[in-house]
Amino acid sequence: MAKTLAYKVDDLKDYIVRFFSKLGVPRPDAEIAARVLVMADLRGVDSHGIIRLHSYYGSRILKGTVNPLSPITVINETSTTLALDGGSGLGMVVGQAAMSRCIEKAEQNGLAMVTVRNSNHYGIAGYYAMLALPHNMIGLSFTNAQPLVAPTYGRTAMLGTNPIALAAPAEKERPFVLDMATSIVPIGRVTVYEKEGREVPLGWGIDSSGQVTINPTAIIKGGALMPLGGTDLMRGYKGYGLAMLVDIFSGVLSGAAFGNNVGHPGQTKGANVGHFFAAVKIEAFRPITEFKTDLDALIHQMKDAPKATGQERIFIPGEKEFELTERYEKEGVPVIEEVVKSLKEAGHNIGVEFDLNPVGEGSGIGA
Amino acid sequence: MAKTLAYKVDDLKDYIVRFFSKLGVPRPDAEIAARVLVMADLRGVDSHGIIRLHSYYGSRILKGTVNPLSPITVINETSTTLALDGGSGLGMVVGQAAMSRCIEKAEQNGLAMVTVRNSNHYGIAGYYAMLALPHNMIGLSFTNAQPLVAPTYGRTAMLGTNPIALAAPAEKERPFVLDMATSIVPIGRVTVYEKEGREVPLGWGIDSSGQVTINPTAIIKGGALMPLGGTDLMRGYKGYGLAMLVDIFSGVLSGAAFGNNVGHPGQTKGANVGHFFAAVKIEAFRPITEFKTDLDALIHQMKDAPKATGQERIFIPGEKEFELTERYEKEGVPVIEEVVKSLKEAGHNIGVEFDLNPVGEGSGIGA
Repeated sequence: MAKTLAYKVDDLKDYIVRFFSKLGVPRPDAEIAARVLVMADLRGVDSHGIIRLHSYYGSRILKGTVNPLSPITVINETSTTLALDGGSGLGMVVGQAAMSRCIEKAEQNGLAMVTVRNSNHYGIAGYYAMLALPHNMIGLSFTNAQPLVAPTYGRTAMLGTNPIALAAPAEKERPFVLDMATSIVPIGRVTVYEKEGREVPLGWGIDSSGQVTINPTAIIKGGALMPLGGTDLMRGYKGYGLAMLVDIFSGVLSGAAFGNNVGHPGQTKGANVGHFFAAVKIEAFRPITEFKTDLDALIHQMKDAPKATGQERIFIPGEKEFELTERYEKEGVPVIEEVVKSLKEAGHNIGVEFDLNPVGEGSGIGA
Repeated sequence: MAKTLAYKVDDLKDYIVRFFSKLGVPRPDAEIAARVLVMADLRGVDSHGIIRLHSYYGSRILKGTVNPLSPITVINETSTTLALDGGSGLGMVVGQAAMSRCIEKAEQNGLAMVTVRNSNHYGIAGYYAMLALPHNMIGLSFTNAQPLVAPTYGRTAMLGTNPIALAAPAEKERPFVLDMATSIVPIGRVTVYEKEGREVPLGWGIDSSGQVTINPTAIIKGGALMPLGGTDLMRGYKGYGLAMLVDIFSGVLSGAAFGNNVGHPGQTKGANVGHFFAAVKIEAFRPITEFKTDLDALIHQMKDAPKATGQERIFIPGEKEFELTERYEKEGVPVIEEVVKSLKEAGHNIGVEFDLNPVGEGSGIGA
C-alpha cells in the first residue's frame, strides 16, 4: 500500500480553486470543479479526484484543448429537454450547469433530460446524479469517455468505461447512489497492479489478441478492459450492451463523439466528450414520503438478508462511499505521496505552490 | 438438445388468441398477449414464450390471481408522467397500454415515463421498448419479478432477474435492442442444465450457504442466481446495483411490491409486479436523420472492429434476435416437444385443443 498524506477538505478545495483561477477559470466555476474533484477523493474514488488536477484538466487548459471559460450554448430546447454544447469547457462546470437546468425543468414538468456535446471529462458521474436528491428527485447521469473497453469477441478498445450513475432519496436511510463503470474495473485499477508488480485476476482484461490475461501490462499496452460480466460465458455481452446504451445517450443523442472517436486527455484537439442527465420528480408518480419509506424498506430487505458464510454485511450501493466521506471529513482526505509530489511539481510550474499542511499520514485509500 | 416441432407464426398466435379468449380475455387483449409471447419465441427467448402460456398466465386466470379483463386505472397523471394500476391484469395487456400512453405523451412533450403497479409478468421487456421505434423514439422498459437473485455477500434470493430493455432506431442498420436480465443467466438456463444432468459454469449461482456452485440443483433449491458480474472480485455488486435500480423504478416509484415481496406465479394472491416505461423523442435533441446516421456509424465501429483470435464476428445487441426472427418467420417457430405435450394437456383441460400442424422438426432453440 502506498503512503498517503491527509489534508483537510477545505484546504484541498481552496487549493483547487486557486489552481484553476490561475489558469483563467472564473472563481464560481473553479469552486464547482473543486467540489466535484474533492467529492471523488472523499468517496474513495481517488482515481477521479485531485490526482487528475493537472493531467486531465490543468495541462489541457494550458494546451488550449479545454476552454477555461466553459462557454456553454443551447442547441435545442423544449419544456422537458435541452441539448447543450459545452464549448469544450471543463466537464465539471458544464455538467453542473446541465444538471441544474435539468432539475429546474423537472421541477416544472415532472421530467427532464439534458444532453451535452463538445465537453470534456466531468469527474465522477455520481456527483451529478446526487444533485437531484435535495429536490426529491431521482437523478441520473451517463457519460462517454476515451476508448478502453473491447466489445465481446473484439480485441481492441472501442468504448469508454461509460459509467451509469443513479441517485434516489430515502427517508431514514442514506440515499441509494449507484455509480458504476460498465467495465469490470477502471484502467486505473489495472495500473495499480502493474506498479505493484502483481498479476490481475483473470477476466478483468484482454491482451492484444483478445485473450483474457493476468498480465496488467498486456491489458494496458495493446489490450483492453473487459465489459462488466467478462467473458461470453459469464454474459459479458451485457456489460458491452450497457456501454453502448450509455454511448447512445451520451454520444449519439447529444451529437458528441462516440465509440472509439471520443478523445483522450493526451490528444491535441478537443475530446468532444458527451454527457447525459435526467431528473425525475417523484411526486409526479406518488407521494414523496411513500417513495422514501418504501426505499427504506427495500434497503432494509437487503441489509437484513441472510449473509453468505464468512460474510457479515450486505452493502447498499453508495453506502461504503458515504462512510468513507464521513471518515475523511473528520480525519482528512488521504492523497498518495506520489500524487502529492506531482501536485507540487505542477503547482510550482504554473505558479500556485501546493503548500498545504497535511493533518495526518496513512497508507492506502478506501475501506 | 431437445427435439423441437416448428409452427407457423400465425398459427401460434391464432392458438394463443383462442386460448385466452376461452379464459375470458377480450379478443383485442388476447391478440396483444399473443404478439408478445410469440415475439419471445421468434427472438429465441423461448423461456418467455408460449412455454408459459398455461403456467404463468392460463393457470393464474383460472386461480383468480390474474384478472382476464385487465382493468387498468390511473393513479396519477401529468403531461409527462403517468402512474397506473394494472388491476392485477395480464402483464402484456397492461404493458402495451402503458407504453402506448407513454409514446403518446412523449410525442406531445418530448419525454414521458409511465409506472405500473399491481400487474403480473409481462413477458419480454424488449417488446415494450421496441414499440417506440416506429415513432422515432428511444424506448425503455424495466420490470421487477419474483426473487431469484442474491445481493452481493448474501445467500438468498432477494431480487428478481429485473431486466433492462432499451431500443433505439438506426438508419440503414437494424435497431439497437438491448434486452438483458441483470442476473448472469435466467433461472430457466440453470433448469436446462439440471434436466440434462450437466454442471453449470462456476459463477452463475450460489448454494444455500452463499458459495458459488456448479450444481444446478443447489442453485434452484435453496440457493440463488448471481447478479451480472458474479463475484465481488469480478464486480458482481454492479449487477446487484442494477437489479436494485430496476426495482426502484419498477417497484418503489410505482408503488408495487419490490425486492423479495414480489409475488411468484405459484402463489395464491396477486403478484403485484411493477413495471416502468420511458420514451424519448429524438427530434427534441437533434434531427432524427443525424441520430440514426450516427447510430449506424457506432454500430459499424463495433462490427468492423478487430476480432479476438478465433472469433469471426462482433454482434450488436439485438442482432442475433433479428436474424432468428427472420429465420423462424420463414421456417416456422420451434417449440420443444415436451412443451408441445404440456400445451396439448393444458389446451385439452380448458377446452381449446392444441391441434396445430407442425411445419417442420428440429433440435434446440437459437443460433
